[in-house]
Amino acid sequence: MSSFRTVRGMRDFLPEDAEKMRCVQRVARDVAQLYGYQEVITPVVEQYDLLAAKTGEEIRERMYAFKDLSGRKVALRPEFTASIARLVATKMMTQPKPLKLFCEGSLYRYDEPQYGRHREFWQVNYELMGSDRPEADAEILTLTYDLMEKLSLRDYHFKIGHMGILRGILGQEHVKEEQQSMLMQLLDKKRWNEALKAAQGLGVSNHCLTVLKNVFETWGKDAVKVLGKAKSLVEGYENAVAAIENLKEILELTRASGAKFEMLVEAGFARGLEYYTGMIFEVFVPRIDVALGGGGRYDKLIELFGGEPTPAVGVAPGIDRIVLAMEKQGIFAEAQRAKRVQIIPVKEELRVKAMEIASALRQAGIPAELEVMGRRVSRALADADRRGITHVVVVGPKEIEEGKVVLRDMQKREQKTVEIANVSKEILGETA
Amino acid sequence: MSSFRTVRGMRDFLPEDAEKMRCVQRVARDVAQLYGYQEVITPVVEQYDLLAAKTGEEIRERMYAFKDLSGRKVALRPEFTASIARLVATKMMTQPKPLKLFCEGSLYRYDEPQYGRHREFWQVNYELMGSDRPEADAEILTLTYDLMEKLSLRDYHFKIGHMGILRGILGQEHVKEEQQSMLMQLLDKKRWNEALKAAQGLGVSNHCLTVLKNVFETWGKDAVKVLGKAKSLVEGYENAVAAIENLKEILELTRASGAKFEMLVEAGFARGLEYYTGMIFEVFVPRIDVALGGGGRYDKLIELFGGEPTPAVGVAPGIDRIVLAMEKQGIFAEAQRAKRVQIIPVKEELRVKAMEIASALRQAGIPAELEVMGRRVSRALADADRRGITHVVVVGPKEIEEGKVVLRDMQKREQKTVEIANVSKEILGETA
Repeated sequence: MSSFRTVRGMRDFLPEDAEKMRCVQRVARDVAQLYGYQEVITPVVEQYDLLAAKTGEEIRERMYAFKDLSGRKVALRPEFTASIARLVATKMMTQPKPLKLFCEGSLYRYDEPQYGRHREFWQVNYELMGSDRPEADAEILTLTYDLMEKLSLRDYHFKIGHMGILRGILGQEHVKEEQQSMLMQLLDKKRWNEALKAAQGLGVSNHCLTVLKNVFETWGKDAVKVLGKAKSLVEGYENAVAAIENLKEILELTRASGAKFEMLVEAGFARGLEYYTGMIFEVFVPRIDVALGGGGRYDKLIELFGGEPTPAVGVAPGIDRIVLAMEKQGIFAEAQRAKRVQIIPVKEELRVKAMEIASALRQAGIPAELEVMGRRVSRALADADRRGITHVVVVGPKEIEEGKVVLRDMQKREQKTVEIANVSKEILGETA
Repeated sequence: MSSFRTVRGMRDFLPEDAEKMRCVQRVARDVAQLYGYQEVITPVVEQYDLLAAKTGEEIRERMYAFKDLSGRKVALRPEFTASIARLVATKMMTQPKPLKLFCEGSLYRYDEPQYGRHREFWQVNYELMGSDRPEADAEILTLTYDLMEKLSLRDYHFKIGHMGILRGILGQEHVKEEQQSMLMQLLDKKRWNEALKAAQGLGVSNHCLTVLKNVFETWGKDAVKVLGKAKSLVEGYENAVAAIENLKEILELTRASGAKFEMLVEAGFARGLEYYTGMIFEVFVPRIDVALGGGGRYDKLIELFGGEPTPAVGVAPGIDRIVLAMEKQGIFAEAQRAKRVQIIPVKEELRVKAMEIASALRQAGIPAELEVMGRRVSRALADADRRGITHVVVVGPKEIEEGKVVLRDMQKREQKTVEIANVSKEILGETA
């Protein structure tokens, strides 16, 4: 009947689904703490120019951009990295490095809604700023692996590459950075042939075209083999060779740290975001097309936003996408039935007594719900059963006179009369 | 140097402040669980018409409203209640009552930024749907009191009134609902004289004007006295009398449940939101002008949004305002210095070993940070000290050969050589 519904691409989460989101967020927060990443909170609404500066063309066109009441051009953030970079370039500039930052929240992109892709979605972000060393890249990979493991996800694999390979080749062929970015957008969408044609149009050498074509075809699960082959392919492109060496070292350190995930190394892997400069990666599970998360190194962004030159590497796991994967894998087992008590007064005059008992239970840390519908006991009991209440306290006139109530165990379907002072102990099973 | 900054009225929270926000949210979440309120998540972006339908004029004019890329008129939510009501009116219509819902998130209003008032702000919401009984109102008041107590806030008071008093008077004088709402807006801003003039302009009787004037002046901390006086003032206005009776019963039940807060009862209290129909309240602390939270009963909203007639009562505590109050009261004591370990390899070749040790510590649940800057031990130690690291593991070549590392307690400034296998036990203090 209602003409009011959610805006297309936006979602409601009912309690069961909200709990799944919170569960993944809690684990992500635990991982941040274990690795020493401190949380920052940045606004959903930012300057349009900040958000547009170095994101990809595709994201730029699909931002929720508008003018606020004073005519400022603003937008809803489509990702976290620009905001974090702004923060580090301004308010955190003088803090000792490395800076390890965590954030969590909702992001907005006007994408065509589809499975795993919504216009409002949730991410956590881990950003490690101030180190250009491979152990920093390895830490981000290991942290992402730990997150997947702690969530009990199975059969996931990491797709890994290095922006320096393609940019190293193209740079040496004098292709300008913006044009490189345009090519990366095509590669991100797996439009390799178009990318090759575009590169040709930009005047790269025939040798380069051959190298690019071969690089696009160089991928596999054996990192040593893939990178060995790639290195021989890009011979003569100095920066591309260095990129491959860097990626090799990162992967060795990651393996050594004990992260045992399946790795798909792709020499021609590109991501749509323009700010990446080094190692890049995404995490996938079978039967879900979209990445559960992705990240990489972006050494120029802080500087671009007015800060000191600050190397940085980070990862952005998608909360709602991880929930999707966990659902598909049947990981959300039925939650342990936590104790939940309902207090039912038999008569109107006993409401106050019922409220007192509810308060006392909550004081003892026991979730306690008061019957607020004024229903008869039988109906209230049926409702309690339906809602997963584990214990019911029936407050009746006869028992109250003796300082007692009836305590009913809804699972065992047993009840007994107990002293009011002992109700919480009885529920917690602390009596003999 | 950076031209990029936050948009006016929007804020960043650095780690120390973010932690305070999360602390209040955690407690609010605990309270939801104790009272059996289940979380739902609704989108930040909603239909403009939904959000504008029954909020106050003032909020309506200050919404972040815009057209999305397909020309839909949307807005950023300025409050939660409309979204929750939409959800209940549509997707949750068949669920057994009472429905007890919790939500948490950011809200947006284009207010003039000032102390305690920002354009992006955070609330939690507790909504109890399906009961029109005074124990439901009392539960919301008690829950709010419990939240304040669990946060250790001091000297707060509740300002309480009932929309039925003024609406009862005005309705009997045939003032239309929209015009009543306009008067409420004036009263919400304490513009009593203007409200009286406006009421006169609407053609109410002279008797009514006298009653209104007297009602506006009827307030105090003694609920029994204030309500007794108010009742005699509004004699003859049947619905106003009933409202006072209802408020009296709610307050009695709240007191009986053990909630011991200071109460300021105001017979002429009005809130700016148009949807309130019954008891209304706000929570204040000294030296902060804005309410830490507010709520009340709104029995017509679900129906208005196309659902079954569903009485409802709720409260919306403001997270960032509560943080402000807690800071003013010095409540955020210095957090217990949790164990935080830094692992420093002495030489490049020992990085892998250092990563292994970091992983092992995290496996044991100990926050462990790897030195990723490639610094010398002395500089890394100085940095660890500055950042509040409690233990440092120095991985040196001589010790590693014997399967050992140097463990340094940064607080005691002592160090010793320990077996790698015993590091976590040593840090947790589990050895003799």
